[in-house]
Amino acid sequence: MSILSIGTVAFDDIETPFGKSDKILGGSASFIGLSASLLAPKVNIVAVVGDDMPKAEIDMLKSNGVDTEGLQIKEGEKSFFWAGKYHNDMNSRDTLVTDLNVLANFDPVIPENYQDCKFLMLGNLAPATQKLVIERLKNRPELIVMDTMNFWMDTAFNDLMEVLAMIDVISINDEEARQLSNEYSLVKAARKIMSFGPKTVIIKKGEHGALLFQGNKMFYAPALPLENVFDPTGAGDSFVGGFIGYLAKNNDTSFAAMKKGILYGSAIASFCVEAFGTKRLENLTTEEVEARYHEFIRLVSVEEIYA
Amino acid sequence: MSILSIGTVAFDDIETPFGKSDKILGGSASFIGLSASLLAPKVNIVAVVGDDMPKAEIDMLKSNGVDTEGLQIKEGEKSFFWAGKYHNDMNSRDTLVTDLNVLANFDPVIPENYQDCKFLMLGNLAPATQKLVIERLKNRPELIVMDTMNFWMDTAFNDLMEVLAMIDVISINDEEARQLSNEYSLVKAARKIMSFGPKTVIIKKGEHGALLFQGNKMFYAPALPLENVFDPTGAGDSFVGGFIGYLAKNNDTSFAAMKKGILYGSAIASFCVEAFGTKRLENLTTEEVEARYHEFIRLVSVEEIYA
Repeated sequence: MSILSIGTVAFDDIETPFGKSDKILGGSASFIGLSASLLAPKVNIVAVVGDDMPKAEIDMLKSNGVDTEGLQIKEGEKSFFWAGKYHNDMNSRDTLVTDLNVLANFDPVIPENYQDCKFLMLGNLAPATQKLVIERLKNRPELIVMDTMNFWMDTAFNDLMEVLAMIDVISINDEEARQLSNEYSLVKAARKIMSFGPKTVIIKKGEHGALLFQGNKMFYAPALPLENVFDPTGAGDSFVGGFIGYLAKNNDTSFAAMKKGILYGSAIASFCVEAFGTKRLENLTTEEVEARYHEFIRLVSVEEIYA
Repeated sequence: MSILSIGTVAFDDIETPFGKSDKILGGSASFIGLSASLLAPKVNIVAVVGDDMPKAEIDMLKSNGVDTEGLQIKEGEKSFFWAGKYHNDMNSRDTLVTDLNVLANFDPVIPENYQDCKFLMLGNLAPATQKLVIERLKNRPELIVMDTMNFWMDTAFNDLMEVLAMIDVISINDEEARQLSNEYSLVKAARKIMSFGPKTVIIKKGEHGALLFQGNKMFYAPALPLENVFDPTGAGDSFVGGFIGYLAKNNDTSFAAMKKGILYGSAIASFCVEAFGTKRLENLTTEEVEARYHEFIRLVSVEEIYA
């Protein structure tokens, strides 16, 4: 089943305690496209770049199964640019530069070929832009998943609430869930967020795993304790990309499938953080993802499993 | 198999955002005794109180299966007293009062009846006192589990390292593991702590669950996301009490048993925080613990389980 992801294709300049990346490929649509395409046969992206984005990067996305017909290239303009520096604990970071550039006037045009979308992934963008994409699809997708961030809660709350009422699954981190719901308990936070629209709430807790809520059902996905986290950038996008990729691959939106999807997303995210930006995802194989998925299964199993 | 737990029987005065407890029963040996006795047939405790400790509290421990022959009562002296106030997030607290009282000169005398100890639980106390208990047992117990805290890392580091070399399992929280090992990654921290002596390391992460390390083996126990945490006091002691209680009940110290033991400990700890101090543990039933254990199993299972 085809996935459509809207998001950013951009430049990141990342500094971590392990080094500095210089200007490399980043953006939510890049990470989501690469991770989802490890599982699903076709991932279409709608995004915008300037003419400074090297053809080699776009070709890399294509060769990894990402369809770039929906990637607009604006002549004479510059791609979105973000620079940040992670603290020693890798759990927090300072944003040094945010240059919107082409993103300032992004109009998400959906190619006719993308209208068959069954699985829609709204990467982190202005809620108004996310809403436009839903409206421009002739048929409502079977499943709409959205990512967002606290910035939009602060600056575009009403737009965000409108989009929330239109979607099926929201994926946010614990701090954002608490801000959005004004509840400290994540159980209460999830319940309140469900009352805003989405039937399913995924709360990402970084090195502590992720929680999946749907009605009264709950699932706890562990994170794999890692020896080294080289660069956390894109981990959340890889996670949700793996999640929707798994659902699309199996054309299954049941709660049971979502539980497995979260573990696949966690598996891919655990690879993503091993190198700067998209580097590790670019050469990741489905066999590696499959093996890591089984590591997650074993990690929480009280029985001995040799699968 | 008999468990011997050394620790404190004390008074706590606790303030949380939900209320104030006034002076109630607390102390590591109280929590460990009550939780371990939910699973194991006999839990012996070695501790000291003043003559201000009401007989009713000691009788309550006895009626819950805790043997108090090793509980010294010092005439004319006062019991250990701790007062603290939890912050709104319940993850941090301020200590308002610490009156050592009888604990200042605590000499852990082991009754002859306790010498058959197979499972020794060293509750959080001065490492020198923990060491004395090991030395006063005529035969080395089959399994020695210890709890400690950052205070002893700061004030009695050499003593602590001596005890670490004598024990099998250490149970500490993530912050303490990082301090003890000087490693941020919990995988690296556990490996370093194992090099100090214990073959098994349990790292408690509060609302994020717990990790079990042994050699290259690793297990992730989730925490049950709770709607309300009323009082976190004693959660760590209940956790480790349930852990050693499960091992003693089954007379099994294998890694497989430890995985289940951690889930039983987590289950009992999740009840402990529902009320002030030991209140919830006092009337907790094994059926409730069993049901909560299965909730933990279901929480991380990708397959549907109806057990």
